[in-house]
Amino acid sequence: MKSEIIAVGSEMLTPYRQDTNSLYLTEKLNEIGVGVAFKTIVGDRRKDLVNAIRTALGRVDFLVLMGGLGPTEDDLTREAVAEALSLALRRDATQVAALHARAASWRISMPQNNLKQADVLEGATLLPNPNGSAPGQWLDTTFNGYRKLLALIPGPPHECRPLFDAECLPRLQAAAPPRSIAVRTLKAAMIPESQADKLLAPIYSTYTDVETTLLAHTGDLQITLICSKPTIETAQQRVDELAEKLEETLDDWLYSSQGDTLEQIVLYYLGLRQATLAVAESCTGGMIAQRITSVPGASRSFLGGGVVYADKLKTDFAGVPADLILKHGAVSAEVAKAMADGIRHSTGATMGLGITGIAGPTGGTEKKPVGLVHIAVTDDQGTDALERVFRGDRERVREWASQQALDMVRKRLM
Amino acid sequence: MKSEIIAVGSEMLTPYRQDTNSLYLTEKLNEIGVGVAFKTIVGDRRKDLVNAIRTALGRVDFLVLMGGLGPTEDDLTREAVAEALSLALRRDATQVAALHARAASWRISMPQNNLKQADVLEGATLLPNPNGSAPGQWLDTTFNGYRKLLALIPGPPHECRPLFDAECLPRLQAAAPPRSIAVRTLKAAMIPESQADKLLAPIYSTYTDVETTLLAHTGDLQITLICSKPTIETAQQRVDELAEKLEETLDDWLYSSQGDTLEQIVLYYLGLRQATLAVAESCTGGMIAQRITSVPGASRSFLGGGVVYADKLKTDFAGVPADLILKHGAVSAEVAKAMADGIRHSTGATMGLGITGIAGPTGGTEKKPVGLVHIAVTDDQGTDALERVFRGDRERVREWASQQALDMVRKRLM
Repeated sequence: MKSEIIAVGSEMLTPYRQDTNSLYLTEKLNEIGVGVAFKTIVGDRRKDLVNAIRTALGRVDFLVLMGGLGPTEDDLTREAVAEALSLALRRDATQVAALHARAASWRISMPQNNLKQADVLEGATLLPNPNGSAPGQWLDTTFNGYRKLLALIPGPPHECRPLFDAECLPRLQAAAPPRSIAVRTLKAAMIPESQADKLLAPIYSTYTDVETTLLAHTGDLQITLICSKPTIETAQQRVDELAEKLEETLDDWLYSSQGDTLEQIVLYYLGLRQATLAVAESCTGGMIAQRITSVPGASRSFLGGGVVYADKLKTDFAGVPADLILKHGAVSAEVAKAMADGIRHSTGATMGLGITGIAGPTGGTEKKPVGLVHIAVTDDQGTDALERVFRGDRERVREWASQQALDMVRKRLM
Repeated sequence: MKSEIIAVGSEMLTPYRQDTNSLYLTEKLNEIGVGVAFKTIVGDRRKDLVNAIRTALGRVDFLVLMGGLGPTEDDLTREAVAEALSLALRRDATQVAALHARAASWRISMPQNNLKQADVLEGATLLPNPNGSAPGQWLDTTFNGYRKLLALIPGPPHECRPLFDAECLPRLQAAAPPRSIAVRTLKAAMIPESQADKLLAPIYSTYTDVETTLLAHTGDLQITLICSKPTIETAQQRVDELAEKLEETLDDWLYSSQGDTLEQIVLYYLGLRQATLAVAESCTGGMIAQRITSVPGASRSFLGGGVVYADKLKTDFAGVPADLILKHGAVSAEVAKAMADGIRHSTGATMGLGITGIAGPTGGTEKKPVGLVHIAVTDDQGTDALERVFRGDRERVREWASQQALDMVRKRLM
């Protein structure tokens, strides 16, 4: 079954925005054995939209249209599909009521233009959207005598993705010929990309029936293994066999065999050891705490900590002696260690993390360049400290530094 | 003049890779007044490529094809254009010699399939590629009786971009009527999307020569105005005129007329008022501090603060009396105010921000549901406090809460 994804929105035809939902949808489609043959990006112009829809229906079996379902004048996807397929649009009374109820629950009056979100294509099934006001639509129809499936889904990622999973995938799976696909995702931290490929390619390249993809991003390596076989057992066996060999080679770079995030793994081990963590962050400015607290239930093992940006806060919150800062500078191994130690004691956590560095773009010197980061992790068994210089802009340096810090916590817990 | 960019390559139809060259090309095209109406991504299949090329020639005046010019069997762009336009391909002797010379300079023997890079479309001009072996091609031709311009350029960014600048832009500028494009981006916080459209659409829809795009994301609204005119002065004048009217209507929802981020604006006003800020974050877990410190130079006005996740840290770092937490609960207006006040005093900042809430997915009760957030901002003039219930998953609640908090700081500074 051949599919096309059309992303609708003039903002994605500017130099500033890019469609990213389609990567997610592609992954989900591939998992059920549906390939993506075309992706099209089209603006909020009705004529162009109709053209793109007719083109797609002429070349694929399944068409996803993302975006253009909102309440504004620019939202034209419903109207364009109606025109392309010569279908009527009718206003759905239940949807109208739901829109009114939604507005009431937010204690706002509903603008009249909101009602167009209740317009339903002739023959379409409405797909509930728990995260937004515009429902999706599913259409099983014909075009030039051929059967075509269409999904109209909202553009915002937090609406698009759950709706696609819950409403589109099962319908598609029922329509597509059954195939069995096994997928497995390994995760590793802080391994250089070229080294990963050099170590792993000789292994995975002998598994020609397993599609292996390496994706590296600021110290995080994701390895995805996909295998398609007549039965799920044989597919799973091949994936597991290869996974085992790769895991062995990755050694302690590997942090998850099941696609977990590094912060999930850190929290998992903290729970396992009945340990608690507190952090004192300078250069990362809250990024480490933010990553950890993005995991539901983080409060069981994570106490919090200080964003000790100003030197005074390093002293007041993390107990770093002022003369230590004066002597070694705020960006030094000594201060990182004192921060880890101090935040551990001031919070009563079993484990303390301190991080200080120069994120840039300014503030670097010859001896302490932009990208220099000192990290320390401490518990009652001792202290691990690390000095690194990370390359890239401010955001990249901070991402690398937070990744390295979380990985040090993980290793200390193992 | 209407254009389309086709990115050729099966890897861009996987979940792992995305075309990014097109953002660069779009910026360059816009600068000379050429709009991008469609972007298409197609794999290395000849039939699909021919289909995509014919579709594009049917709807735009200028077509860029990126990728598929290399030496492998998968590189089919030349062949597909020849088929789509019924043109012959001839092998260019000078190019064959150049390929041999290039191989010799690298001290490698040239595989036979390399020679296909010397195949030139009937009527095309070769575009020199100093950074790779495959030259580009420029074609000024007709399709169904209309004049069409085509550029075939290599896919790797370091080949594609310089070649496009040096060889395609001047040719395009010579062929296209001269236009100049003015762009302006307005930003507003916490205005509901439908309300924004209701207020703004009656204004911007009368400016039919200015393309207006509204983009909303968790309380952040971006309005992009684009106008194309024969001279930059007239284009800029139209954009500025519309911008002024929209700004007036947006009133104090507007936080930037030049595309700045909310955190940049907060830091700008802090600097202007010679104020300093400290934050005590519970539910946002460091997200507010992280956003502020993502701006270079944040340390001038941002002292830091506490990620006071555990109740004990609310007391120790932000001076919240333990009995206040006991009496009202950690998620309460009283505790938010005490956090703002306490962090201001414990850090010596002129302004304190406190935020506490239930990010979910669990922990909600009937009286205090998931999404409930209390925020307080305080300085020597007094305290602003707000209670909100945000919808969505844990990450969305945290994003909304951090946006609302930053906007309260902005408003207090204005």
